[in-house]
Amino acid sequence: MMQPVAYDSTPAAADHKRLHNFSAGPGTLPLEVMLEVRDQLPVYGDLGSSIMEISHRSPAYTEVNERAVAHLRTLLGLGDDWHVLFLQGGASMQFHQVPLNFLPEGGSADYLNTGSWSKKAIKEAQIVGQSRNAAPHVAASSEASNFNYIPEPATWDLSPDAAYLHYTSNNTIFGTEFAEEPDVDVPLVCDASSDFLSRPMSVERYGLIYAGAQKNIGPAGATVVLVKEDFLQQRRDGLPTMLDYRTHTAKLFNTPPVFAVYMIEKVLRWLQNLGGLPAIQKQNEEKAARLYGAIDATDFYQGTAREDSRSKMNVTFRIKGGDEDLEARFIQEAKGEGLLALKGYRSVGGLRASIYNACAQESVEALVQFMQEFERTNG
Amino acid sequence: MMQPVAYDSTPAAADHKRLHNFSAGPGTLPLEVMLEVRDQLPVYGDLGSSIMEISHRSPAYTEVNERAVAHLRTLLGLGDDWHVLFLQGGASMQFHQVPLNFLPEGGSADYLNTGSWSKKAIKEAQIVGQSRNAAPHVAASSEASNFNYIPEPATWDLSPDAAYLHYTSNNTIFGTEFAEEPDVDVPLVCDASSDFLSRPMSVERYGLIYAGAQKNIGPAGATVVLVKEDFLQQRRDGLPTMLDYRTHTAKLFNTPPVFAVYMIEKVLRWLQNLGGLPAIQKQNEEKAARLYGAIDATDFYQGTAREDSRSKMNVTFRIKGGDEDLEARFIQEAKGEGLLALKGYRSVGGLRASIYNACAQESVEALVQFMQEFERTNG
Repeated sequence: MMQPVAYDSTPAAADHKRLHNFSAGPGTLPLEVMLEVRDQLPVYGDLGSSIMEISHRSPAYTEVNERAVAHLRTLLGLGDDWHVLFLQGGASMQFHQVPLNFLPEGGSADYLNTGSWSKKAIKEAQIVGQSRNAAPHVAASSEASNFNYIPEPATWDLSPDAAYLHYTSNNTIFGTEFAEEPDVDVPLVCDASSDFLSRPMSVERYGLIYAGAQKNIGPAGATVVLVKEDFLQQRRDGLPTMLDYRTHTAKLFNTPPVFAVYMIEKVLRWLQNLGGLPAIQKQNEEKAARLYGAIDATDFYQGTAREDSRSKMNVTFRIKGGDEDLEARFIQEAKGEGLLALKGYRSVGGLRASIYNACAQESVEALVQFMQEFERTNG
Repeated sequence: MMQPVAYDSTPAAADHKRLHNFSAGPGTLPLEVMLEVRDQLPVYGDLGSSIMEISHRSPAYTEVNERAVAHLRTLLGLGDDWHVLFLQGGASMQFHQVPLNFLPEGGSADYLNTGSWSKKAIKEAQIVGQSRNAAPHVAASSEASNFNYIPEPATWDLSPDAAYLHYTSNNTIFGTEFAEEPDVDVPLVCDASSDFLSRPMSVERYGLIYAGAQKNIGPAGATVVLVKEDFLQQRRDGLPTMLDYRTHTAKLFNTPPVFAVYMIEKVLRWLQNLGGLPAIQKQNEEKAARLYGAIDATDFYQGTAREDSRSKMNVTFRIKGGDEDLEARFIQEAKGEGLLALKGYRSVGGLRASIYNACAQESVEALVQFMQEFERTNG
């Protein structure tokens, strides 16, 4: 016998409470969703097992999947010409899969370079293009100012023959977000990972929308891909089976990330019950206004994104122009008050509060109160 | 406001019991693992949130991941020259990723064709080979007899210049399994999805081992990839970032399937506490012997796989040479007795009992009792 490995000495969950969670991702999820998951373990309804231990082609899982798809169609107003897929590999895999399917031989696609994720998407399009005499065209970039703004549409250098325009709707690291969706002559392809379903979308402008689940709609491990039939018909032939979107629109090809889809169904149900995208948009705008208002009310705090480009999901700010000792103390003391995950990403520094859909107004209020108290003590 | 979507009227979990689950995958998991997951919702230890709602680079998740990796190293006896990865996309993505990385320009790789999954792996290697003047070589196949046996090594037509030999250690659909691991002059690449960690492996023969988690080690949504450093060094340059194994051996590149890895850690801990691979092998052999013994004890039941090729994971059998009405009644009545998911895959028909690691001896015993009773009533 091997030496037994000790189990966690985790006290019962009831002994602990949930704190204010500002994690940039994976992000906080609604408490009622968590409790429903708990109540469905170790058995789901009258199945005799959990939802994780049955065939993905069984009636019980098929129903979960179909409900998740239906919620997405309702929330976004997607017609029958849209396919709804739950894939794997995150946005990072989509950076490859999008140009693999849609970057034409000898052709081009426009990309807006507004942050780290956009850069990665552009890099993967370049790799795909190498064997196709094709390349992505960077139509606009804010890299020279460390991505602290979204370039104005009037400055975009769009190419006449682009197969699509790719953009990242929200930039988690830099705290910027497109205030308006691009409106161009070619289909949009959007990495919506970090603001997906935080507000309505003009879906008629898009050919494909993708989003890693782990910010607004579920746990890590599933990637929502929405693709429109007429755009899909433009894809190339002869692709590897798993990377051809048609494989997945034709049928449930292989085992999906069952648990992640099961949780996404619950989060989308929660969102519908709240009133859908107009209702969550209103909440998100109120939360963001409260937090940016607190930042702008004093010289002690400074937002890092240009005002017209501020994200309603990831609020990035500094203390006294970048006093790192004070920022470290802020993070430490905030944690002591039950305010978690406020450290900024290293390439921006400072502080970041991610206030995704499931981040409650009370959490934002608690953060604002703490900010005011911290300034009184350290200002 | 939109119309609220009703929540499940799911009675409390305590009202229901777990039944005998013979699902071919996603498969049954240990009850104690399920209960630990439940106890860690909606908060994990003193985190203030669940494990799903924190950064994948946080200390708490890093510890989970490192423990999962350590369990795998201990269970399989992997040295420091092995990389342990948790990727996404299932075995289906590995069918593409393996040749993309390792099928040489103008070269070849040997493939053993022992079932549906092998065929898919061969197809993807053909697609990759098209642009490389390369192709997989099918060194042996049992397709002509509907894959009901594993071809003997003496009959394999191995190519002299193969970069690797790919095989599927267990064939879920056809109920066959390699009794012995191949022993050839080139590194083995194994799709071990459906018998991974069910018995010890001679890891020194392998360059790469992959397995979808959803049979023996966890929920769907994670793919274990074990790759040896000297084999990895043979891979091609210029690959898409996400599909280059080096991307993932170098660092945690993107958000992993957090919940799946968290559960895998628990299942592997359970397996170590049982006594590791020798202990589970003994249990699996006893379960398989009991079930095949019941099949062979009477002419009423017939196994579909050749005796020397029988799987210890998926036991496929027929009633009275394929009496479909009787088989349908068997499945129906078994379900009434709490014995779930016994329907065979459509290309084989009949019955299939999947008795993975977490399928208890008591479940096999209950099935054998039912089989005997069913024969008494219908024989």
